[in-house]
Amino acid sequence: MAQRQEASGRAEGRPIPSPQETLVGKYGEEAKLIYELQDQGGELLALRYDLTVPFARYLAMNKITNMKRYHIAKVYRRDNPATTRGRYREFYQCDFDIAGQFDPMIPDAECLKIVHEILSDLQLGDFLIKVNDRRILNGVFAVCGIPESKFISTCSTIDKLDKMPWEEVRSEMVGEKGLSPEAADRIGEYVQLHGGLDLIERLLQDPKLSQNKLAKEGLGDMKLLFEYLTLFGITGKISFDLSLARGLDYYTGVIFEAVLLQQENDHVEEPVSVGSVAGGGRYDGLVGMFDPKGRKVPCVGVSIGIERIFSILEQRVKASGEKIRTTETQVLVATPHKHLLAARLKLISELWDAGIKAEMLYKKDPKLLKQLQYCEDTGIPLAAIVGEQELTDGVVKLRDVATREEVDIPREKLVDEIRRRLEP
Amino acid sequence: MAQRQEASGRAEGRPIPSPQETLVGKYGEEAKLIYELQDQGGELLALRYDLTVPFARYLAMNKITNMKRYHIAKVYRRDNPATTRGRYREFYQCDFDIAGQFDPMIPDAECLKIVHEILSDLQLGDFLIKVNDRRILNGVFAVCGIPESKFISTCSTIDKLDKMPWEEVRSEMVGEKGLSPEAADRIGEYVQLHGGLDLIERLLQDPKLSQNKLAKEGLGDMKLLFEYLTLFGITGKISFDLSLARGLDYYTGVIFEAVLLQQENDHVEEPVSVGSVAGGGRYDGLVGMFDPKGRKVPCVGVSIGIERIFSILEQRVKASGEKIRTTETQVLVATPHKHLLAARLKLISELWDAGIKAEMLYKKDPKLLKQLQYCEDTGIPLAAIVGEQELTDGVVKLRDVATREEVDIPREKLVDEIRRRLEP
Repeated sequence: MAQRQEASGRAEGRPIPSPQETLVGKYGEEAKLIYELQDQGGELLALRYDLTVPFARYLAMNKITNMKRYHIAKVYRRDNPATTRGRYREFYQCDFDIAGQFDPMIPDAECLKIVHEILSDLQLGDFLIKVNDRRILNGVFAVCGIPESKFISTCSTIDKLDKMPWEEVRSEMVGEKGLSPEAADRIGEYVQLHGGLDLIERLLQDPKLSQNKLAKEGLGDMKLLFEYLTLFGITGKISFDLSLARGLDYYTGVIFEAVLLQQENDHVEEPVSVGSVAGGGRYDGLVGMFDPKGRKVPCVGVSIGIERIFSILEQRVKASGEKIRTTETQVLVATPHKHLLAARLKLISELWDAGIKAEMLYKKDPKLLKQLQYCEDTGIPLAAIVGEQELTDGVVKLRDVATREEVDIPREKLVDEIRRRLEP
Repeated sequence: MAQRQEASGRAEGRPIPSPQETLVGKYGEEAKLIYELQDQGGELLALRYDLTVPFARYLAMNKITNMKRYHIAKVYRRDNPATTRGRYREFYQCDFDIAGQFDPMIPDAECLKIVHEILSDLQLGDFLIKVNDRRILNGVFAVCGIPESKFISTCSTIDKLDKMPWEEVRSEMVGEKGLSPEAADRIGEYVQLHGGLDLIERLLQDPKLSQNKLAKEGLGDMKLLFEYLTLFGITGKISFDLSLARGLDYYTGVIFEAVLLQQENDHVEEPVSVGSVAGGGRYDGLVGMFDPKGRKVPCVGVSIGIERIFSILEQRVKASGEKIRTTETQVLVATPHKHLLAARLKLISELWDAGIKAEMLYKKDPKLLKQLQYCEDTGIPLAAIVGEQELTDGVVKLRDVATREEVDIPREKLVDEIRRRLEP
């Protein structure tokens, strides 16, 4: 399904430049990064900011109440690019979402399992997936005496706790957001907590929080989530972290973010986060915002930061001095002397028709040395060489580029021999 | 290379909304379809019209003189959409290009070989690849007495010959383009010709054309091209067709277009074209237009009309009544009675970790019938069922959904058994 959508380019029913109003009111303080445009007709246009809002709109417009899909595509931010850290104005996102009315936390647990699997398989180093719930945060705010109108903007401030110390976050709360110092301090006691099932149990017993309906719901679901994650065998990398807030407006339940930890050989006491590589959460109200009758479709999803992951992998390759092949060519078709272009074209055509990945130099009479050098430069493992003698004998000289060994292979057995040599 | 570029999203060094000036002066009469935008700063922006101009700009900006790559991405046209024929304002193109200074017609022949291979492998029905050369057309115009200033606009008119009869094209030439009736008639004699090597030889002897330098060059290269295509064994589907003009300004040499022919069972005398599915040609001047010093990089490339091909394949599937699976799920993990969610989660996790594509319903206690029905509906071939008895016995009941046959498999042998069953 996802594949077909991506291929047809009509997944969201709209081209990338969307009417600006589609994007308004979903991103909180990040909204200033929306890449607005103005078309000839004067209609305000903007480029999509993420893949979540277009997905929700797609579900609503097509009255789809049940769907699981991934989507890899470009999104746009009116931001200051920082190319070394993998931040661009145009970049790819890679999203996975599960939409539909299901029993609590089962799809949510699957999202976390997928993040765990991706980050493990990519061997990016040690990582941690922080988990929280918007309902728990809202409960914390309520019992700390924050008015409901300030919940979302307080979330944005708390979200900065991974980049700045508590003191600075506190002063933004009091100074910019207008919270009382006492309320800020009460919040501080909660949002600096992190742990596992034990912490969930403790908070369920917390005299103030346990009185708050939303917090209780959130903590109950968090307990369920940890049970499922235990069955998946991944709780070792999961931390229930009350400082995790996520800046976006649309989250309604569980939220999560994966961070890479400083490598052990960096000689530090406690693991330090070196950046977020995935994030997501539950957004049960977003589809309803696009449905004319407000019908809700609960959703949970995750976005993998593939640009950031690529930039980490690139830096690692660079540091290692490893050479990465940029093509998959298996054989170079070569000739040892002049006037043999026709022989090369005929042989390469045979190899292509047999599904062999073959290349040749686009010159009439290239020097053999140049052809072999090209193999070395680009990592092509085999050269198939035809000269007058080989044509007369009905053979092809198959050369192993690494060992320089050459063997005459009867022409009709060449394809099989190449396949045999390339077997893993 | 292509893969990495596509993944990084920075192939053209610019986001999809490009400065309008980048696109101006490259598309001839089609330029009216450019999807212009206006950003907040008042800078004129437009969405890319194809992948060729961004590729040329990318080569120039990065001073690349030699590259072969494919690129699959979206382009934009301010056109009237016709969704049933696969025409949209936003759609995918799939381009393959070879850039660099090489010996004549070798990369050009490879482009045609690739188009031939793609259309053959997709089994879209009979097809024909029309080939011509801008230099031959320009030579024809010159010997027919057309002023050079009218060459490009005359090309646009001739390009309509596949959609309208010669009489209408002639009257557009005389009426709208201001050619003399005699000049139009002289052109008409040439552009209605099509054939193979024989026609090339005849035109090389043509008393007027053989005197024209450009036409002679073009015909010489066309002869070379047909020699190479003969070695590739694909001339049966290639037609040298003097009516092929292609509307775009940037072509400088060989041009080509692949059309699907009416199926044989349509009972018509001569094969009729039912639409273009690929096109391209040589554009040796485009990179130089983006280079500050005007340094040229000769290029040849082809664009595959994947949207049109998809819409043809979709119609065929629809007509056949075949059911196409939209997921690749191999196993549904199911339970036969209540209170077994934990068992399902544990088993699915084991299968996922072993690389098996597994799903489960996101319900705590789904009915077995509902789970099996889901397999039938979505084409999942196997169900792995765990109940209390199976848990006690250390087995999993593996059910073949089609035959309904069930076998108890020891848990530790389940993954191997699933793999064995799914072998092709």
